[in-house]
Amino acid sequence: MDLQHTLDDIRDAVRPYLGEGKVARYIPALASADPKKFAIAAVTVDGEQFVSGDADHRFSLQSISKVFTLTLALNAVGADLWKRVGREPSGSPFNSLVQLEYEHGIPRNPLINAGALVVTDAIVSRCGGTLSPIETILGFIRDRAGNDAIAVDEEIARSEAETGFRNAAMGNFIKSFKNLDNDVATVLDVYFRQCSIAVTCAELSRSMVYLANGGVDPVSGERVVAAERARRINAIMLTCGHYDASGDFAYRVGLPGKSGVSGGIAAVVPGKMAVAVYSPGLNERGNSLVGTLALEMFAARTGNSVF
Amino acid sequence: MDLQHTLDDIRDAVRPYLGEGKVARYIPALASADPKKFAIAAVTVDGEQFVSGDADHRFSLQSISKVFTLTLALNAVGADLWKRVGREPSGSPFNSLVQLEYEHGIPRNPLINAGALVVTDAIVSRCGGTLSPIETILGFIRDRAGNDAIAVDEEIARSEAETGFRNAAMGNFIKSFKNLDNDVATVLDVYFRQCSIAVTCAELSRSMVYLANGGVDPVSGERVVAAERARRINAIMLTCGHYDASGDFAYRVGLPGKSGVSGGIAAVVPGKMAVAVYSPGLNERGNSLVGTLALEMFAARTGNSVF
Amino acid sequence: MDLQHTLDDIRDAVRPYLGEGKVARYIPALASADPKKFAIAAVTVDGEQFVSGDADHRFSLQSISKVFTLTLALNAVGADLWKRVGREPSGSPFNSLVQLEYEHGIPRNPLINAGALVVTDAIVSRCGGTLSPIETILGFIRDRAGNDAIAVDEEIARSEAETGFRNAAMGNFIKSFKNLDNDVATVLDVYFRQCSIAVTCAELSRSMVYLANGGVDPVSGERVVAAERARRINAIMLTCGHYDASGDFAYRVGLPGKSGVSGGIAAVVPGKMAVAVYSPGLNERGNSLVGTLALEMFAARTGNSVF
Amino acid sequence: MDLQHTLDDIRDAVRPYLGEGKVARYIPALASADPKKFAIAAVTVDGEQFVSGDADHRFSLQSISKVFTLTLALNAVGADLWKRVGREPSGSPFNSLVQLEYEHGIPRNPLINAGALVVTDAIVSRCGGTLSPIETILGFIRDRAGNDAIAVDEEIARSEAETGFRNAAMGNFIKSFKNLDNDVATVLDVYFRQCSIAVTCAELSRSMVYLANGGVDPVSGERVVAAERARRINAIMLTCGHYDASGDFAYRVGLPGKSGVSGGIAAVVPGKMAVAVYSPGLNERGNSLVGTLALEMFAARTGNSVF
Repeated sequence: MDLQHTLDDIRDAVRPYLGEGKVARYIPALASADPKKFAIAAVTVDGEQFVSGDADHRFSLQSISKVFTLTLALNAVGADLWKRVGREPSGSPFNSLVQLEYEHGIPRNPLINAGALVVTDAIVSRCGGTLSPIETILGFIRDRAGNDAIAVDEEIARSEAETGFRNAAMGNFIKSFKNLDNDVATVLDVYFRQCSIAVTCAELSRSMVYLANGGVDPVSGERVVAAERARRINAIMLTCGHYDASGDFAYRVGLPGKSGVSGGIAAVVPGKMAVAVYSPGLNERGNSLVGTLALEMFAARTGNSVF
Repeated sequence: MDLQHTLDDIRDAVRPYLGEGKVARYIPALASADPKKFAIAAVTVDGEQFVSGDADHRFSLQSISKVFTLTLALNAVGADLWKRVGREPSGSPFNSLVQLEYEHGIPRNPLINAGALVVTDAIVSRCGGTLSPIETILGFIRDRAGNDAIAVDEEIARSEAETGFRNAAMGNFIKSFKNLDNDVATVLDVYFRQCSIAVTCAELSRSMVYLANGGVDPVSGERVVAAERARRINAIMLTCGHYDASGDFAYRVGLPGKSGVSGGIAAVVPGKMAVAVYSPGLNERGNSLVGTLALEMFAARTGNSVF
Repeated sequence: MDLQHTLDDIRDAVRPYLGEGKVARYIPALASADPKKFAIAAVTVDGEQFVSGDADHRFSLQSISKVFTLTLALNAVGADLWKRVGREPSGSPFNSLVQLEYEHGIPRNPLINAGALVVTDAIVSRCGGTLSPIETILGFIRDRAGNDAIAVDEEIARSEAETGFRNAAMGNFIKSFKNLDNDVATVLDVYFRQCSIAVTCAELSRSMVYLANGGVDPVSGERVVAAERARRINAIMLTCGHYDASGDFAYRVGLPGKSGVSGGIAAVVPGKMAVAVYSPGLNERGNSLVGTLALEMFAARTGNSVF
Repeated sequence: MDLQHTLDDIRDAVRPYLGEGKVARYIPALASADPKKFAIAAVTVDGEQFVSGDADHRFSLQSISKVFTLTLALNAVGADLWKRVGREPSGSPFNSLVQLEYEHGIPRNPLINAGALVVTDAIVSRCGGTLSPIETILGFIRDRAGNDAIAVDEEIARSEAETGFRNAAMGNFIKSFKNLDNDVATVLDVYFRQCSIAVTCAELSRSMVYLANGGVDPVSGERVVAAERARRINAIMLTCGHYDASGDFAYRVGLPGKSGVSGGIAAVVPGKMAVAVYSPGLNERGNSLVGTLALEMFAARTGNSVF
């Protein structure tokens, strides 16, 4: 069956499940998401785009932005980044702060909030030249997605900042171990804004395809990262991309992926394509319930699993 | 380059590193291992065997045995096993007991000691018929490796039992949450003996190839597990197979694998082959130092990474 | 008002509360306790005894036995005991195992289970001469209480052993840090039996009065411990005697005390008397609900608080 | 021997130890403290003052301020304060953040930093009328010490704020559990300033004597708190006043007390007097090394122990 049919079939197959799960409620802009929305999109390493469902509906990247900032920071800092952040799965969320303490302010990996703050701090210090840090990040995502109109949703960014006490705790805690170079407030501001960049599901799949294609954007032909680095970012997504459900996602879907609390998930089929899904209802681990189901169907129907 | 040359090249390339790392010292039989020994072996999904180095040197499986008991228990119990053990990476070893407490006696995954005790308990309850549990496990490994002479190294088993206070603590703790059906002493006895089964590197690669071949042993043609289950065992190995260095192994090697404290590592290249290495010097995370290096070379030189 | 009237008044005042709280249910012998039973008893430093309520009802010491074994072990080992066990409050029970790990097998204090196992281990190694360890402990308590008929309740001891997986976990864990000299099973056996020694409330108050009287038993005139050591045992009881409600007991009652899960509490008024209460219903922290209330009334009515 | 002689004797006896321990180095104003300085002072419940050593040397209260803010907050809020903060010892510092998480943002007690932030938040919300929160706190301490010239050391306050990332982490973390009513920055500002109030050892003993005298200031005759509340504050000091050395202080000194990182300790002999010591060298638990020794001598020589 061709890819378009597969995506359409999945869209139809998940319909009965739409509305299950719980939309994130900690800020109004997320709480008002329509739980019936669903989109799935793919871009192959040939640059072909396939979409099904509400593929033009815009949502904030949230934690998916961590994959892009990791790419940027690795390009800027290189392997030295690993002195400041680990690459091991983090275990239960309960342990996040105690692990930071036990490991002297070195976050477990760049895809949990603590690690993402360190990555953003590295970008604040090292990237951009004349561009501000958030412009650098935004520019990178616009390039990846091929759309210069992509922007920060300022309302979401403001809400994130107003309710982000836990991230502020984390930032200050890391700073107390001298593992942030810049002001906590500066890093948090960039972080909250990177999380609030709004994309469509189509753009999301398009923007991730460099990781399926050995580090080269197949549309523009631009080399984004070295092939080995792309593989390694995929490895980190597989082991750490879904918080404390990373093992479950690997078990059920078998693809590197990264989820965001707004309901998006981006996944990579190495050598073949990037796939993105959107559905705002979350499962009890904070990942898109129907999105995970859709990717499980995708992997099962297409035989695309890294295992 | 053909596979035999690759293995020979790796054997030569790691020679300068032999002796680095620290041989496990907690029992005499491990402490006396020759730190200069090295072996690498592979079996392809066509059933071809390749070996290089001390491929006939015998060592105890230790934690690698957990992959075999997981396979057995999943075949016996099915998905119900996941009610008793999770499939998420475990985070730092420091947290192992506190996580057991926080998660009410449900170990994080079947490849850490706590989880392996639950898996062995399931085998004690459900497998074997007229065979004792350790005979069942041993029989399974003999079949996988194609050698009926494979046996428990009784001296190692005795030493493990005499020094295994931490495992005894774990077993009693899990029992206090009613997540062991059998006597703690019975489960520990089987567990210590499964860890003490001695194999060669050649046998180890041979015994793992069913996981590279969709669950079918390519030599005997026997279906060992369903294809989907084989993929899922691979997923668990990738996310949980190297204790608190699982993320690092995924990052550097990019293959599902499982290490043992005696210095062995078995890795799976889905669709292609199983590879095993042996070198008793361990890195600071308790995994074979030269073994990991050899697999990293193998992945880099052959391009075999799941990412 | 004289002491007898005070005790009688308290007995009457707590009557409406009898039956509140939950009787310990983990073994049948405790579960069958009559929740309406109540006793209060005191022995002054002049050796006078006062009792009210069911003062002849027998119950097992449980954790209160830890005060006696601590006294014995300090007399046998001296300050060296503090190399093997701390004297700091333990924080929440959730942390007990993680703290043991963080602190390398040194329990926080001798009045939590982990610490009591180390204390009992010291007694097994150092006390008794021709007497067995449990005979030594039993002999000490008989001497303190002035009743040679006091005995281990063997049914309770057996039940404790059969369900004591958590204590077995603790013992093995401490052993893995080499902080138990004897077999785990031996230490556990003595421990479960010391907890099962059955006393009356009258005997309990009598047996504790040496701690109110500068270390001298006022009835026999025997010096049990040095005056300074008696003070220090009182200090440990005040900071650590009620598990994770030690601060609350200090706040509400203001006296050194030790509770047991069977419903007894022994308290010390330095320079004046020992007071014991019994009521099997426990509050949510595992201490006698009505017993704590009775001691709070006692402290308020008599002005006896160390603060 | 009279009290003046006792204090002088202690001053002489500790002389050989002056310079031991480590002066706090996290801010310049503390790091520059003279490690040879020593003072001891007492005020009896008759209002008599005794001093020895450098009793007029000024140092910042640091954590000792928590006793005063606790008194103020209890007077303002009453027992409702205990809905927002516990009164149990905190266990090892390692656990502070994980306990906050496990206990949903309710700090263990008001004498650890987390709890003190909640107490200060209550003062910000409820105290003062026309006075600012820091003026309220300062006014209370001036009244207790009988010196209107007592002031915040603004240089220390500034340094505390500049390096207080860990406290900022704590404040934000508590806020994320909705257990701070005011802005984190506002609470931190008051907190850092209350810690920076500078007193002499003589003033410190004077300001604490209400806790020895049933809640009444013996000099002014003013009732500061109810007698029962004074006893309870003493109980909290005894169980929680020295961080993770509270048990050790109870064991060695046997008096309610509160230490500060600048080297001061205030202790209470209920019904008799308040005693304060100052010596900036700290032991490995962060309490004044010579100060603790001096109080241990004081308790031993005068027989003043609550046990």
